[in-house]
Amino acid sequence: MSRSVVLLSGGMDSATVLAIAKAAGEECYALSFDYGQRHDAELAAARAVAASTGVAEHKTVRIDMGQFGGSALTDEGIDVPEAGGSGIPATYVPARNTVFLSLGLAWAEVVDADRIYCGVNAVDYSGYPDCRPEYVESFQAMANLATKRGVEGRPLEIVAPLIDMSKAEIVARGTELGVDFSLTVSCYSAADDGAACGNCDACELRRVGFEEAGIDDPTRYA
Amino acid sequence: MSRSVVLLSGGMDSATVLAIAKAAGEECYALSFDYGQRHDAELAAARAVAASTGVAEHKTVRIDMGQFGGSALTDEGIDVPEAGGSGIPATYVPARNTVFLSLGLAWAEVVDADRIYCGVNAVDYSGYPDCRPEYVESFQAMANLATKRGVEGRPLEIVAPLIDMSKAEIVARGTELGVDFSLTVSCYSAADDGAACGNCDACELRRVGFEEAGIDDPTRYA
Repeated sequence: MSRSVVLLSGGMDSATVLAIAKAAGEECYALSFDYGQRHDAELAAARAVAASTGVAEHKTVRIDMGQFGGSALTDEGIDVPEAGGSGIPATYVPARNTVFLSLGLAWAEVVDADRIYCGVNAVDYSGYPDCRPEYVESFQAMANLATKRGVEGRPLEIVAPLIDMSKAEIVARGTELGVDFSLTVSCYSAADDGAACGNCDACELRRVGFEEAGIDDPTRYA
Repeated sequence: MSRSVVLLSGGMDSATVLAIAKAAGEECYALSFDYGQRHDAELAAARAVAASTGVAEHKTVRIDMGQFGGSALTDEGIDVPEAGGSGIPATYVPARNTVFLSLGLAWAEVVDADRIYCGVNAVDYSGYPDCRPEYVESFQAMANLATKRGVEGRPLEIVAPLIDMSKAEIVARGTELGVDFSLTVSCYSAADDGAACGNCDACELRRVGFEEAGIDDPTRYA
């Protein structure tokens, strides 16, 4: 059986990615990050999704990226913007995907995983530089120079199955694979119980995704 | 003034790198990691080196890489080997340089640094895949696809000034730049007060480095 590390945030995208990896027959090692994001509802959601999907193991690694500041998601001094801005948004966390994929790579080496699955998506979040296909390819090339596997000629693959999908396509694909989206949290300012604010970019994208997919939206709003 | 993030472990290599960055006129942001390594003497050494060299800021980020296991440096179940093995050693920490450089990249984005300096060295540690020049180049390429700076056409540089130097050359260069090596700790099994074991690979390399450079070795042994 092929093994994969799956980055799992607790949002709808990574829940769908986990379901895709399972459907591909992978033994999944789910990895979440406590990186100083403003709320823990996301991590509780990740645990619920991992349990409901079935994984070989689920780990949550703490990294204090809030120390660096620079993002509305980890810095109390920067407000989470309402939906509709342009350019690189204030919710951008510097080098977040690189840090997460790197820690995924560390675990992948230890369990000798063949793949790392991640929910990177170029369509909805086009303002984030580390969500583009050329970035993912470049990380894979670096990873294969960095590790034993690469040296031994057994390259590791970075799989980003959502990269070209719209939110509506993600909702449709996840639903098809049986993802319980009621367990997931997307909101940047979710309440402790996971209830969404309904006003931030992430809430707006999620709402439109369900609407365009023509699928009932199970999101609880505060 | 140009800004650099400098990865600072508390060992002699990164102390020399910091001195090289300072001598190049960089404003230095020193970054250390509490990654589940077996002893804290290394981090105390990093603080002492940062203070004695003079930096704009010094941060220590905690990341629980010990959770992944797989290395004698973070896993209590794996013994630190004595000097003289071959191949990839048990002290190899999976993806460590990638994780450290990624967190350096996060801070570099926030302070808008032009460079990240690191002590990667291909000569003494040839068994570590993430210590080769092609790895460093590949990380730089990835970093410039991952970040705002790269998107804006102001590429960030990964500087590894020790990459082709022997331990003796590092000792000589550091001494020339005024590095106080008595503050540094190299030993994999150092005592709480920083005293070295004298038996591990790192102790052996350090001892031979001072000997070959013909410079008095200030290392305290347990």
